[in-house]
Amino acid sequence: MTTKYKNVYIKDTATVVGPYEYEGPLSKRFDKHYEDMYFNEETLEKAETKLMSDSIELALDKSKLKSEDINLFIAGDLQNQITSSTYAAGKLNIPFLGIYTACATNTEGLALGATYIESKICKNVMVSVSSHNMVSEKQFRNPTEYGAPKPGTATFTATGGATCILTNKKSKVRIESATIGIPQDYAQTDPLHMGSVMVPAAANTIHRHLTDLGRSINYYDLILTGDLGIYGKEILKDFMKTEYGMELNNYNDCGVMLYDLENQKEVQAGGSGPVCSALVVYSDILKKLETKELKRVLYVATGALFNPTTVFQKSNILSIANAISLESVE
Amino acid sequence: MTTKYKNVYIKDTATVVGPYEYEGPLSKRFDKHYEDMYFNEETLEKAETKLMSDSIELALDKSKLKSEDINLFIAGDLQNQITSSTYAAGKLNIPFLGIYTACATNTEGLALGATYIESKICKNVMVSVSSHNMVSEKQFRNPTEYGAPKPGTATFTATGGATCILTNKKSKVRIESATIGIPQDYAQTDPLHMGSVMVPAAANTIHRHLTDLGRSINYYDLILTGDLGIYGKEILKDFMKTEYGMELNNYNDCGVMLYDLENQKEVQAGGSGPVCSALVVYSDILKKLETKELKRVLYVATGALFNPTTVFQKSNILSIANAISLESVE
Repeated sequence: MTTKYKNVYIKDTATVVGPYEYEGPLSKRFDKHYEDMYFNEETLEKAETKLMSDSIELALDKSKLKSEDINLFIAGDLQNQITSSTYAAGKLNIPFLGIYTACATNTEGLALGATYIESKICKNVMVSVSSHNMVSEKQFRNPTEYGAPKPGTATFTATGGATCILTNKKSKVRIESATIGIPQDYAQTDPLHMGSVMVPAAANTIHRHLTDLGRSINYYDLILTGDLGIYGKEILKDFMKTEYGMELNNYNDCGVMLYDLENQKEVQAGGSGPVCSALVVYSDILKKLETKELKRVLYVATGALFNPTTVFQKSNILSIANAISLESVE
Repeated sequence: MTTKYKNVYIKDTATVVGPYEYEGPLSKRFDKHYEDMYFNEETLEKAETKLMSDSIELALDKSKLKSEDINLFIAGDLQNQITSSTYAAGKLNIPFLGIYTACATNTEGLALGATYIESKICKNVMVSVSSHNMVSEKQFRNPTEYGAPKPGTATFTATGGATCILTNKKSKVRIESATIGIPQDYAQTDPLHMGSVMVPAAANTIHRHLTDLGRSINYYDLILTGDLGIYGKEILKDFMKTEYGMELNNYNDCGVMLYDLENQKEVQAGGSGPVCSALVVYSDILKKLETKELKRVLYVATGALFNPTTVFQKSNILSIANAISLESVE
């Protein structure tokens, strides 16, 4: 399902990161960073909520909007029962929609927000996501055998909070269209190779998006997947060629762009988490769309759908990808 | 935020329940029931997915629609990372939005679906929820001390799957409006008294809904909360009176209606879980709206926002309620 939008603009965004992200190549472009992983909070979980709340505060500041000017708040994260989002929402006084499609959550939120603005129900919608490396490790990978190394295909959950304010008033970048993902089941079961798991979803969504709108793959200056990582990125290129005969030329992956993979060895195959793609798009890609260095970008966040229980029970890991077409405004 | 809808109708619904729900007063009105808690599946988690998948199949059968006629599938549940919904979605080939606001999820889904239909993006939207008593007990309340009794204020997670197909074609019942909830924090911390936790959210949403639309509390033939249970129900009546000076006359609660509280002692204060209110509304309330025994119903599903980690860390339990106004079509 691909929806075209005529009147949905990106007003402002804000990004807050932890120490690993600040060490990466986008370092100076983030709005705020912390030097430890607790941010003066008592628990890691509360630290994650702080990341999201900080990004909300910064986005509202930049936009010169007050909380009461925002008609709807849409958010999601990886914590069980999306509690990072609900606690951030609890500090606001705004109607709240909780959402979840793993690391594809941010583009789900942008698509929903765009629909509420295009349909004139809302003037301003705020969309937030967060993730925290140590919260995710604790929740998804604990207990692990002592000292057990991860394979090189494993990705590293990004620590950060990111907020986007969508509006019906013209700005420099707009959401031109959105394609909602269809879950894909390719009978994959390895949570330490999520790049591979998410490839079929990215491919399906890119292909449906282009087909629905009658566009060639070169229509976009850049196709940007969420967090496939270095291996997933190469697998996607092969998959698009063999499955759809499409050559991914103007292509990159946010998981690869967020860190310095040469020197930050701890991130292994690259970044992941709902905030990973949001950090890259908001700090880097939007700036290039604003200056028209890029004119058309297809932002395809990708998510792996599972929890530790489903992994222990050897269920397949499904995947999903939601695409947002971003366009420079003339 | 209250949105009015002109062209959103309920086409068909389907309900599937476990043995406890089948023993209750609505017994014969459910479309399907199972006699054990596993439904021939290997795990309880897969059993929950089966409940949702069964309800989808039944709803599609009743509607004489095929899967490809459904433009969008919206679903949520209580399992970590809403895996019951994602596995049910994985069996379909429909664009999927994952949502979560605990036991208020069903009305979040209906509100989103209504928006996608009213804005003419979709013709048919399918909304599903599920919960499974033993999956929830295992996930939220394990480990418990051996033989530890629960207080009488505890509610009982309903076992069931429920699906609603929304359409733009006239039917006997329509969604007239929806109010999205604002999370409420009344510094409550007891997960075994969720009725009390959710009262402020129900009250806030009912009050905002009536204020936004300039309606008196007697506009509705019935105001129906999600799952406050017997204690929460009485607390809400008091709260509405003291906080807003409003008398809740035509009022009931789905958690109280789902079971025979006199004889089914195991359910304590009543039913809960995302499916609880959906089971009552789809099996009972919609029928009364179809026959015009009821003409206007405000369906206010209520959710408690927490997970076991936040409880162990003694964080407040926030709550949310989303309201859907259901109306007989003349």
